[in-house]
Amino acid sequence: MAQQHLEPTDPLAEPVTGDALAGYLRAQATEFLRALRQHRETGTGDSLDAARALRRSARRISGSLHTFRPLLDPDWSEAMRPELAWLSGTLALEHACASRLDRLLAALHRLSGSSAFPAHVEVAARGRTAGAARTGAAAAGAVSETRAPAPERGNLTVGAAKAGALLDRQLTLARTRAHSTALQALGSSRFHAVADKVALLASEVPLTTTAAASDLRPFAATAEERLTDAVAALPLITAGSPYNAEALIHGLSPDPAPHPQDAPWHQVRLLLRLHRYAREVLHGENTPVDVRLLTAGQALNRHRDASEAAAAAASAARTPRIAPATAYALGVLHADQRHEVEAARFAFQQCWQKQTVGTP
Amino acid sequence: MAQQHLEPTDPLAEPVTGDALAGYLRAQATEFLRALRQHRETGTGDSLDAARALRRSARRISGSLHTFRPLLDPDWSEAMRPELAWLSGTLALEHACASRLDRLLAALHRLSGSSAFPAHVEVAARGRTAGAARTGAAAAGAVSETRAPAPERGNLTVGAAKAGALLDRQLTLARTRAHSTALQALGSSRFHAVADKVALLASEVPLTTTAAASDLRPFAATAEERLTDAVAALPLITAGSPYNAEALIHGLSPDPAPHPQDAPWHQVRLLLRLHRYAREVLHGENTPVDVRLLTAGQALNRHRDASEAAAAAASAARTPRIAPATAYALGVLHADQRHEVEAARFAFQQCWQKQTVGTP
Repeated sequence: MAQQHLEPTDPLAEPVTGDALAGYLRAQATEFLRALRQHRETGTGDSLDAARALRRSARRISGSLHTFRPLLDPDWSEAMRPELAWLSGTLALEHACASRLDRLLAALHRLSGSSAFPAHVEVAARGRTAGAARTGAAAAGAVSETRAPAPERGNLTVGAAKAGALLDRQLTLARTRAHSTALQALGSSRFHAVADKVALLASEVPLTTTAAASDLRPFAATAEERLTDAVAALPLITAGSPYNAEALIHGLSPDPAPHPQDAPWHQVRLLLRLHRYAREVLHGENTPVDVRLLTAGQALNRHRDASEAAAAAASAARTPRIAPATAYALGVLHADQRHEVEAARFAFQQCWQKQTVGTP
Repeated sequence: MAQQHLEPTDPLAEPVTGDALAGYLRAQATEFLRALRQHRETGTGDSLDAARALRRSARRISGSLHTFRPLLDPDWSEAMRPELAWLSGTLALEHACASRLDRLLAALHRLSGSSAFPAHVEVAARGRTAGAARTGAAAAGAVSETRAPAPERGNLTVGAAKAGALLDRQLTLARTRAHSTALQALGSSRFHAVADKVALLASEVPLTTTAAASDLRPFAATAEERLTDAVAALPLITAGSPYNAEALIHGLSPDPAPHPQDAPWHQVRLLLRLHRYAREVLHGENTPVDVRLLTAGQALNRHRDASEAAAAAASAARTPRIAPATAYALGVLHADQRHEVEAARFAFQQCWQKQTVGTP
């Protein structure tokens, strides 16, 4: 089929019209409702999966509303997008806290050169006790350096063990709060209004009168251009030079905010996602797998995760009354994660370079 | 001249005999005596240069004694080498402390993202006050976190400034001690015995009876083989993969000793030096400049310097009663220098790879 090889910028391809957009939005709305049903029917064990599925379709609907804006009823579209952004942002927090903690504990194990308790063992153990942690952690807000390290952390040095215990308390607390916030959000009238709109979308997409006959490809091409322009503005020559030491350059800066140098990379990550969704709209279920886009997206996810983990380590180091050994371990951990940031930029540059060179 | 293109393993080259070794040793002994005279005549300002020149010739004599051992009087040679090693080791310490401090302060500035006071300004300022620091620093042994940071460090954050002040005190004290030890060594009867032996060497080299007619090239080839074998045993595949995160893997290990993973690299650094000296013996003043060897040597020097700077930061973090912010900055600094270690290994791998590929 010709559609399988269709690319947004391919001048020979047949037009894809607003009907395809309507079909995509209806399908994503149906997925959203299915995930919502699953979330209400299942226990907490599967609720993370259901939340992920809700976020997945909310992001796709929101992204398509953005890319193909002129083809949709503007009032409806303008009202819908911030609500979907609020929902997927709220639902993302719990998972983000959990995976940030896993990343930091795995790094502490690696930095301690421990082989007796590889990181995945602890991660698996954490998974089993996540429910208990969720209910009990709210009381663990107060920082206490005297608490003994958990048994599975016995192979870490004192500083690393204390740093791990501190991060565990802080991020488990954050996760518990994110979980409560997500539950509250899903029970709120604000959410019910969004769900009602999505339910409507599953049967009727508010296209403009001319949209059904309009070609979608110029809009998809614009999304791709925005991505290409943003990538061109990245410092890729530096990123492609290994060990450039750029990512840690503000490692001891007094600014507690995330590194401003990370922002353009985060922006590219979002634009890459919009480009991917636009391809899905054009190709539907026949969307060809683009390994280059997948790899680039993974590198940018790793960039974001490492950036936020580094910030969490720096933030934990500002906890009052921690021991110097704890602070030292958090400093090593922060620098380690900033080097992960740099490594992710290098990986992105490498795969993007191939992409550009490989394009005929 | 054919000699200009002579390589130790070149089967077509004419033999180089023990006479060349004798000439080389006489020349190095003369250099040694010249540097010693310069050291006695000059003030402390130039004494570092003189000490460097003494070390330079002591290393070359000692290295040649090792590589061409069977051609020299064994009793004399066995007695001479440990004395030369003691001397160059003792003389190297002061310079090592000074450059380690410069490296760590420059890194702290870089990590603070400061541009107002670039590192070289402070390094220059330190150079001017080195004499004062040397005389006054012995009293600064006690660690006092309350001491105000030096004015030129005002642009650093509190943690970075305190870490810088702590490292300054500890390494200036170590430098002062190294300076005293070097002065004592140069006035000792042990040193006078070495100097007498070197003076004798400048006029008469104790070759064995057959040495004058022996070919030097097999010995030089053995030195090169030892180097090649040691390089082959290095984890070069890992080192050539950027951001492999190997160098920091024991960053939080309880062992206060330098990282054992660094030892084979330090060993290659020494073997590379022996190979270079053997080439000098063969080629004399016509030794062709080998950019590959120079670059590889620089990468290994950087590896050694970063490894020792990282250890100094870790050691400073074990100072009792330091503030958590100081410890955090030292942790970041330690990790930064361990990444410099990794970067140096990558640089070595890159230049060695070229070397192997480039050889016809």
